[in-house]
Amino acid sequence: MANVPADAGSPAGLPAMHPRDDLPRDVRIYEVGPRDGLQAERAIIPLDVKLSFIDRLADAGLRTIEATSFVSPRWVPQLADADQLFAELKRRPDVRYPVLVPNVRGLERALAVSATEFAVFVSATERFAQENLGTTREGALEMAAPVVRRAIAGGIPVRGYVSMCFGDPWEGRVDPSQPAAVAARLVEFGCSTISLGDTIGVATPGHVRAVIDAVEAAGIARPQIALHLHDTYGQALANVLAGLEEGIVEFDSSAGGVGGCPYARSATGNLATEDLIWLLEGLGMPTGVDLGQLVLTSRWLAEKLGRPAPSRVVAALSR
Amino acid sequence: MANVPADAGSPAGLPAMHPRDDLPRDVRIYEVGPRDGLQAERAIIPLDVKLSFIDRLADAGLRTIEATSFVSPRWVPQLADADQLFAELKRRPDVRYPVLVPNVRGLERALAVSATEFAVFVSATERFAQENLGTTREGALEMAAPVVRRAIAGGIPVRGYVSMCFGDPWEGRVDPSQPAAVAARLVEFGCSTISLGDTIGVATPGHVRAVIDAVEAAGIARPQIALHLHDTYGQALANVLAGLEEGIVEFDSSAGGVGGCPYARSATGNLATEDLIWLLEGLGMPTGVDLGQLVLTSRWLAEKLGRPAPSRVVAALSR
Repeated sequence: MANVPADAGSPAGLPAMHPRDDLPRDVRIYEVGPRDGLQAERAIIPLDVKLSFIDRLADAGLRTIEATSFVSPRWVPQLADADQLFAELKRRPDVRYPVLVPNVRGLERALAVSATEFAVFVSATERFAQENLGTTREGALEMAAPVVRRAIAGGIPVRGYVSMCFGDPWEGRVDPSQPAAVAARLVEFGCSTISLGDTIGVATPGHVRAVIDAVEAAGIARPQIALHLHDTYGQALANVLAGLEEGIVEFDSSAGGVGGCPYARSATGNLATEDLIWLLEGLGMPTGVDLGQLVLTSRWLAEKLGRPAPSRVVAALSR
Repeated sequence: MANVPADAGSPAGLPAMHPRDDLPRDVRIYEVGPRDGLQAERAIIPLDVKLSFIDRLADAGLRTIEATSFVSPRWVPQLADADQLFAELKRRPDVRYPVLVPNVRGLERALAVSATEFAVFVSATERFAQENLGTTREGALEMAAPVVRRAIAGGIPVRGYVSMCFGDPWEGRVDPSQPAAVAARLVEFGCSTISLGDTIGVATPGHVRAVIDAVEAAGIARPQIALHLHDTYGQALANVLAGLEEGIVEFDSSAGGVGGCPYARSATGNLATEDLIWLLEGLGMPTGVDLGQLVLTSRWLAEKLGRPAPSRVVAALSR
C-alpha cells in the first residue's frame, strides 16, 4: 500500500476548529497529574523528577497544577515528600498550585510551606469512606469541615472533591442524590468549587447530566462545579462533552493519562490532558497549552514510570 | 490500602442507565471487525478463525456484521479468502452480512457466492483516491456507479462509504463540502446508506455536526447517514454523542477496536464495539449484545492477532 507522509493524521498537530454556539467558550483545565496521577502509580518518583514534571507542565502552558497531597506518608508513600516538594517548588506568579489536605494536620503542614490554595476530599458513598478513610461519610465530612473553615477564614479558596459520584466499587450504583448531599455540605462549609469525581470511570453522558442536575438542585451553581472524569471504560471525553453542554467550565485531567484509581485496578484511569485538549481545541476553545510540548513531557514521565502513557493523543502524535 | 472486591467498577458488567430525551431511542451497530478490522491488521488470520470470529459476533448478539471485502488480494492480502469465507459462512436469518465490493469484478465475485448486501467505497479527497486507489476521486465514483446500479437493479441495498470526511493524511484539512458532494453522488447512484468515515480519527464534536449539516444540505436525510469513527485521538465516543444529538442512528464499530487505518499508522484505529455499547447502554439504548460474551470474543481474537485489544472496556472488564 501507499506510503504515508510524516505528518499524517494531524498536519498541524491540532484538530480543525469547529466551535459550537451551544457550548461555553472559556474552559479551564485543572491538571492533577502530579497529585492524583502520581499517587496512583506503582512507581515512586524521585523529588527532582516531580519538580521537573510540574515545571514542564507550567512551561507547556497549564495554569492550574495540583502539586501534591499533604496526606500521611503511611497512606500514600508516593507523595511522602509533599513538604519538601512544595518548599522547593519554583512557583510562578501566573500559575496556581493547589494542594490536597485531608485534615487539619495536613493543612498545618501545607501552611508551613506557604501553600495558598487547598482541596479537601470526601466520598459520596458510605462504604468507600469506610474502606478508604477508615471512617464514616459523616466522619469524613467532619474531618474536612475545620480545614475548609480555617482556610477560608484566612482568605484561602478551597476546592471540595467528591469521589464515587457515579459508581462505587463496593456499593455499585450510586444515586445522584448522594453526591448532591455531600456537595451541599462542602459548599455550606465554604468550598468554592466542587469537583465531582467518576473515580471508577463508569459514567455515561445521561448520568453526567443527572448528577449535575441533582447537584444544582442542592443549591450549587454550575460555575462552581468541576468534573473529574476517568477513562476506564473510554467514556471520559463523551462525558466532558455532556458536561460542556450542561455549562460546566472546569475539567480535571492528568498529563498523559497518568495515574488512576487503585480501587478500580485500572491501567487507564485519569482522563488524559492531551485528549481533553484535542477535544477543546477542536471545539474552538483555546487552552493556551502547547500540545507538542505537553506530549513530550508525558513521554518523558512515562519513561520514568516504566510504562507507556495511556493517552490516545500521546500515542498518535508519537508515531 | 484497602482491598477491592472482584466486581469493582462494574458490578453488573454494564453501566447504570440514564436515558436522555433529546437522543434517538433505537440505534444500530454496524460491526466492521471482520472486514475493516482484519484488513488493517498486520497478522493474516486463517479462514477458520475468521469464520469463528463472525459466528461468535452473531452469538454475542450483533445483527449486522460486515463479513469481508471482495477486493483484489494484491491490495488486501488479509482478505484474499473472501470467496471461500463467504461460501462457507453459516448465515443466520436474523443477521445481515454485507460485504465490500470495490468494483464490478468484486460484485461478480460476491454475487457468485450469493452475497445479498453490498458496500462501495470512495474518498472525500482527491489525494487519497490517488494514493489508495490509484485513480482520481471522479474515477473512484465512476468505478462505484455501475456496482450500485447493478445491485439495486436486483433489489440489493448498497451502502456507500466515504473515507477521509474529516481530514486526510496528505491534504490535511477537509472542507465539509467535500464529503457532502461525494455522498450526494453516491445517493444519486442509488446507495441507501452513506457511512461518513473519520478514517484518521481527527474529528471533534463540532466538526461532526458541520459535516452532517453539509451532507444533509446536499439532500441526504439523517436516517440515511451512518458514522464510521476512529479512536486515534480518543475522540470517537464524544463524536458518537455528537452524532446521536444530530439524530444519527447507525454507528460502525469493530469488536475490541481491532484494526484501524494503515495510513494513520495507529495502534488504535476503529472505535471499539464494546466501548460503543457501554455508551449506548448507559444512555438506555438497548443494543441486544451480551457485552461479557463480546469481550471474551475480542480477547480470543487478540490472542490470534498477537496484540491486546485496544478497547478500554475490554481492558477494564478483563481485570
